[in-house]
Amino acid sequence: MERHFDEELKELKDRLLYMGGLAETMISDSIKALVEKKEKIIDEVYKKEDEINLLQVEIDDRAIKMMALHQPAADDLRFLVTAIKINSELERMGDMAINICQATRELLKQPLLKPLIDIPRMAEIARKMVKDSLDSFVQQDPNLAKSVCERDDDVDDLKDQVFRELLTYMISDPNTIQRATDLVLISRHLERIADHSTNIGEEVIFMVKGKDIRHHIDEQ
Amino acid sequence: MERHFDEELKELKDRLLYMGGLAETMISDSIKALVEKKEKIIDEVYKKEDEINLLQVEIDDRAIKMMALHQPAADDLRFLVTAIKINSELERMGDMAINICQATRELLKQPLLKPLIDIPRMAEIARKMVKDSLDSFVQQDPNLAKSVCERDDDVDDLKDQVFRELLTYMISDPNTIQRATDLVLISRHLERIADHSTNIGEEVIFMVKGKDIRHHIDEQ
Repeated sequence: MERHFDEELKELKDRLLYMGGLAETMISDSIKALVEKKEKIIDEVYKKEDEINLLQVEIDDRAIKMMALHQPAADDLRFLVTAIKINSELERMGDMAINICQATRELLKQPLLKPLIDIPRMAEIARKMVKDSLDSFVQQDPNLAKSVCERDDDVDDLKDQVFRELLTYMISDPNTIQRATDLVLISRHLERIADHSTNIGEEVIFMVKGKDIRHHIDEQ
Repeated sequence: MERHFDEELKELKDRLLYMGGLAETMISDSIKALVEKKEKIIDEVYKKEDEINLLQVEIDDRAIKMMALHQPAADDLRFLVTAIKINSELERMGDMAINICQATRELLKQPLLKPLIDIPRMAEIARKMVKDSLDSFVQQDPNLAKSVCERDDDVDDLKDQVFRELLTYMISDPNTIQRATDLVLISRHLERIADHSTNIGEEVIFMVKGKDIRHHIDEQ
């Protein structure tokens, strides 16, 4: 029985890691479509969204069945509950990547407002945060989880920087407002992806250390 | 033992309903502070945010302890897992109300751009969605849950309307861009609150009907 639980746990982790990989690719590709002006990449992102949605249902079911069948102790229960929460976070990252694609589609109808520097940087930080947050869960590594949470500030700073810069475009030329707004939106979707990774990091720290930093991370 | 589980379940529901009530008040008050230009109300919202954060920890703990102690069957397990998910959604609504307060603080420094009509309407719909989504959970009422999900479109439409109207202000007078942007942000925070209620509604339908509508609600 014990061995069976461990095997199922390994499979659950593998599926979550696979789902995390999909989310990473969706984030990178949604920005790649924008930077390289390749609308075709957007279709790939949508396909992965379908896959992520199916995975969410599958992973929830797996975790709940494991709880019901094996009646695990509190530690294992908390691990499974955390897996279910992480599952939701990943699915929402997929939603955000789709939102980016929608804004990208609008942007690709017109010449790009300016060369993009900060937005691809934000996307790369956010993508790495996804990866590290999932690794911190699977390896139960609170230090890695903490480093994910800390990077959230970098993403927030970049988001503010993007906004301030685009505001100057909007003020000097009202014709740029629609495009600038779409870029601001994209930066906010990236910020929310980083927030979801931060949520994962906080959950992992809570799970491993048995204490809740979700509401006083700044005091740590 | 069985009676004890039922009693704990009732307490858990009561705490979630109480938390939902706090979220409702935070939403209403954050907009009230803006409409009535009363910065003092903002302080009240921040106090409730502290309370919601503590409640999130408490409710998670309650649910996990109930799983560990009573080893409930699959149905009750799914109810507890749903409670944990709803708990996260409510806590994030609190975050959104705080975001609204931050934008409101900025807006109150200057004369209001225009009389607010759509934003208070959005807030009222969003607040009612919170209430009904929680009621649908406690009463296990999939029809009420479905009606919550349907109202999400109304909020999205209002958000688009707010944006289009404010865009005209921004284009005609660049001096309004900062204030208009803050109002756009507020409408997006309200939209996200409605999204969180919709998530709750979808989870309730999944829990009650045992089928997953989370990813094809449009086909229903």
